[in-house]
Order: sequence, then structure tokens, then C-alpha cells
Amino acid sequence: MAKAVVLFSGGLDSTTVLAMAHRDGEDLYALTFDYGQRHRREIASARKLAALYGVVEHKILRIDLDQIGGSSLTADVPLPESRDLDTISADIPSTYVPFRNSILLSLATAYAEVVGADLILAGMNSLDYSGYPDCRPEYLDAFNRLIRLGTKACVQDGRQIEVRAPLLYWDKARIVQEGMRLGVPYELTWSCYREENQACGHCDSCALRLRAFREANLVDPIPYLLDSKRLAY
Amino acid sequence: MAKAVVLFSGGLDSTTVLAMAHRDGEDLYALTFDYGQRHRREIASARKLAALYGVVEHKILRIDLDQIGGSSLTADVPLPESRDLDTISADIPSTYVPFRNSILLSLATAYAEVVGADLILAGMNSLDYSGYPDCRPEYLDAFNRLIRLGTKACVQDGRQIEVRAPLLYWDKARIVQEGMRLGVPYELTWSCYREENQACGHCDSCALRLRAFREANLVDPIPYLLDSKRLAY
Repeated sequence: MAKAVVLFSGGLDSTTVLAMAHRDGEDLYALTFDYGQRHRREIASARKLAALYGVVEHKILRIDLDQIGGSSLTADVPLPESRDLDTISADIPSTYVPFRNSILLSLATAYAEVVGADLILAGMNSLDYSGYPDCRPEYLDAFNRLIRLGTKACVQDGRQIEVRAPLLYWDKARIVQEGMRLGVPYELTWSCYREENQACGHCDSCALRLRAFREANLVDPIPYLLDSKRLAY
Repeated sequence: MAKAVVLFSGGLDSTTVLAMAHRDGEDLYALTFDYGQRHRREIASARKLAALYGVVEHKILRIDLDQIGGSSLTADVPLPESRDLDTISADIPSTYVPFRNSILLSLATAYAEVVGADLILAGMNSLDYSGYPDCRPEYLDAFNRLIRLGTKACVQDGRQIEVRAPLLYWDKARIVQEGMRLGVPYELTWSCYREENQACGHCDSCALRLRAFREANLVDPIPYLLDSKRLAY
């Protein structure tokens, strides 16, 4: 069996990726980042789901992105107001964490070197990526080049470590449909940026998630505040 | 004045880079990583030196590379025995921290985005780089491409953030000579991987440092264990 490191937040996308890798019979090494994010429930979700999928190891790595700041997800910058989903990708929102994917993928690469995994799976997707520049295919290509040039595993040992983003060209509806087909327990996942007990239904992450279920003609099983499900659309 | 983030370990190379940036009149943002390294004295050195050079901010960022392991600098892997300096770059030593420079440069890039610096200065050099693949010029080029593609600052705001390694093609003797010319207080720097009070004189870092001072016809002002200065050569 091949070993795969899965960047695993406990949200909708990365849980679907974990389920796909599980279906493919990979030896799973789940990597979750505790980067001072407001939405702590993500991490609790990740723990439950990693156990459910029988990962070889679930590594929860604390990195102090909150010390760097610059994002409404980690610092005292207001969260953005609800935005029209049709214009969501026109501007990079304040939830952008400076260079986050490079930081997380670098740590994932280090982890892959250590455990002997040649595959790193990430849940990013480009179609509704909310304006993050580090979710684009050309960015990923550049990162893979960095791995080939910068790791002992590739330079000296001839290994071929590669980041793949299987959802890169999928829209959210397809992600949910594939996840449902694989039996992903979406009731255990968490995406909301704002709330811990009931999802707010209004932040970018909720809006994208709700649209995904709506377009897939499915009902999101997590609890939402009041009538936010209805309000959002 | 331009702002520059300086990757600053408190060692010989990065202190020289800090002094060069200070000479150039940059607004200095020193970034030191507390990554669970054995040689804690590095960080104490960095604090003193950052204050001495009047940095705008000295950010000490804790990242748990020791949680990932895989290196004798952070995990329970034995430090390498003393090696012949002529063969030092033939093989990547156990002091290689998996993908370290990518992790550190990614965090430095995030920090540069937040403080508005377009220059990131790193002390790596390729000639006697001890076998680390992520100290090579082609690696740095790949990293700068990643910045151009992956940061809000470059993609949306038209900034041009760039990592430069001014010592990249310098040998250690030239580094020390330039530092001495700039009045770098090398007695406050620390390079040894093993010891805290007196440098061991035998680890790769000590060996390179001692050779640097010898080739520059200068005396290293830090204390060494016993006759290790003499023993090493």
C-alpha cells in the first residue's frame, strides 16, 4: 500500500478527499493544523473523522499563525459581511491567511518526508476558491517544483513526492455528490468561520457549503442558526 | 525607507545579513524561529543582536518542527560525528530538517505580507551549504516564483515580494571579512549545534565557522571547549 499525507481540516472538502484516499486503499496520515483559527470546532471534527477512517496517524500541528496575524480568521480583523456568491471570487477576502497554503503544504511535505509518503493530498479547488491566489493550478505546479528541488527525499533519495488536489476542478456540488456516494458522514464535518454550535449560514464558508448541498439536491445535515439555511437563498 | 524581513537565527551568516541590511538603511523586521532546536543559545543571541541593530520588530515565532521530527537538530536522532570538511557537501547530513527552508521562508513571506515588506533576506549560501538541497540558487528561484503566484500582495496588490540571499555565492571567509568590516559583534553570535556555554568545535556548524575565521586570518571571539579550536585543524 502507498502512504498518503492528507491535509485534513475536518471540513467538507478535505473530508471528501480523506474518504477518496481511503477508498483507494492508501495508508493514511492525516495532518491537521491548529493555527489559532477562530473556528475551533474544525479540530474536534477532524479528530472524530480521522478515527472513523482508521488513519495510521493523525498529527495535529500547532503553528502560531495568529502571531503573524493579517487575517480575519486569526487576528482582530472583522470577518467579512456576507457577500454575493457570484462576486465572491472577484476580490481576495479578509479571511485570506497570508501565504497559508505554502506554510501548510511545506509542513505537509516535511511530514511526508519523515513518514515516507510520496503523495500529499489537499482539498483545494479552483472553481469556487473564494479568491485565494494559493488555490490555483499554476500555484500548485510551482509548489511541486519546489518539492522536487528542495527535499532530501527527491534530490538525494530519488523519491517523487507530489501534492495532488483531486478536487481542483470540481465544483462544490460534485464534491458533495461524490462524498455522499462514498458515505462521508457530513454531519461530523464543520466549515463555519464564525460559530461553534450552529453554523452561521452567512460566512463565505457556510455560503459555499449551503450552495453545494442545494445544487446537489441534498440537505446539509449540520445544524444552522435560525432560518439561515433559508435566509441564505 | 524600504522594509526588509530578515530571517535571523543569531548565527554568523544571518547576523552578517542583518548588519548589511542595517548599513543599507532598511527598516528591519527580524524573524527568529523557535522550532525546538537543541541549540537554544541561538535564540538568546538573536535577541541581543536584534536589539543592538535597532530593529523595528523582532518576531520570535514558535513552530513545532520537533513534532514532525526527522532531524538530529530536533528529534532523538544522534548528531553526526565530526566529518571531513572536504566531503561535507557530498551527502545530506542528519541535521537536515525536512523542508525547513520552505517552512521558514513561507512564514517569512506571510510576515512580509503583513508588515508591508517587499524584501526578505536570508543568510543561506551555496558554496559550503553542507548538503542541504534547499540552499541552492535554483531552489530560491522556485520559491520566488511561488511567492509571485501565491500571495495576495503580488497577485492582487501588485507588490513584488522577493527573497534574496546576498551571501549565496560567498564563502564563509568572505562573510566574516565583510561582517568584521561592518563591525558585527561576532562574540554575541552562536552557531554550535551541540553546546550552550562553550562551542564544541566539532559539529558541522562549528567546523565551518572555525574554517571561516581561519581563512579570513581572524580569531573567532566565542569560547570553545578545551583545545577544540586547535584540534579541529
